[in-house]
Amino acid sequence: MKLSLKQCRIAENKKMCKTMNIDEKYMREALKEAKRAFEKNEVPIGSVIVKSGKVIARAHNTIEKDNSSLSHAEMKAIKKAQKKIGNWRLNGCVLYSSVEPCIMCISAILLSRIERVVYGCKDKKFGGCESLAEIQNIKGLNHKVEILGGVLEEESVKLMKRFFRKIRKK
Amino acid sequence: MKLSLKQCRIAENKKMCKTMNIDEKYMREALKEAKRAFEKNEVPIGSVIVKSGKVIARAHNTIEKDNSSLSHAEMKAIKKAQKKIGNWRLNGCVLYSSVEPCIMCISAILLSRIERVVYGCKDKKFGGCESLAEIQNIKGLNHKVEILGGVLEEESVKLMKRFFRKIRKK
Repeated sequence: MKLSLKQCRIAENKKMCKTMNIDEKYMREALKEAKRAFEKNEVPIGSVIVKSGKVIARAHNTIEKDNSSLSHAEMKAIKKAQKKIGNWRLNGCVLYSSVEPCIMCISAILLSRIERVVYGCKDKKFGGCESLAEIQNIKGLNHKVEILGGVLEEESVKLMKRFFRKIRKK
Repeated sequence: MKLSLKQCRIAENKKMCKTMNIDEKYMREALKEAKRAFEKNEVPIGSVIVKSGKVIARAHNTIEKDNSSLSHAEMKAIKKAQKKIGNWRLNGCVLYSSVEPCIMCISAILLSRIERVVYGCKDKKFGGCESLAEIQNIKGLNHKVEILGGVLEEESVKLMKRFFRKIRKK
């Protein structure tokens, strides 16, 4: 079947809309995790990992509870996903994070061969995908990852602001 | 007490020798861990963390055993040290690694506020301190870390070469 230019544009838009809707759907799951962190007085960041349309891992930041600077939502989600599928190679997986992954987390994403990363708001202090650095563009890496930021950005920003207002009040 | 220029130089050399000897002493501990990894058919990389002259954590790479690309020696040593002292801030700690930390590990080191990193040989494929990138020099980081490479380098290179010869034979 051949499509006219107009039909092509409509089809392209539909495809984009579908991808956007899918991204928003899973970002809402990541935000649910972020809210769980909020309730536990942890910086509200949440992540989920999706493979073939299924959430295979979900996690939120537990730095304070674990007394460990390594307990970021993304790191925990990666570890859970690797355990779930019994393989450290997460090819074909998409990681959703409510906040831009830090330098450590985007490096861990690259080491785990995750295919795509979608995040909500930027992290000006620690972000490793666009704010402090673009780790994914370092020459010589043995893996490439597709990155999309700004999905449900406002909801993530609101949650972060609400958290830091709460902390300051205390 | 005032020292002559010659006396100053001798004192300076003695201080350097002392630091070098101390670094070699702890690097031997990291190499012991690397050998443990070797025996378990894991890439032979080992780490120890030292605080006030005491080894507070030791670990080796267990990627294959754990089926996780996050189970690097440095990550595991950091987690152990944080648990040991009950604080995620590892101020005043020195991390010794038989191989140059990768981008993820040097980022984790920065997040953990480790003061100094000493490593053996370079890692041309993954190294984040000098080979692929110099993560510690990214502008805007909230922590600085002192880095020294090349301590007992040959021993680490030999161990790595021996490991990959063994793997190829299999």
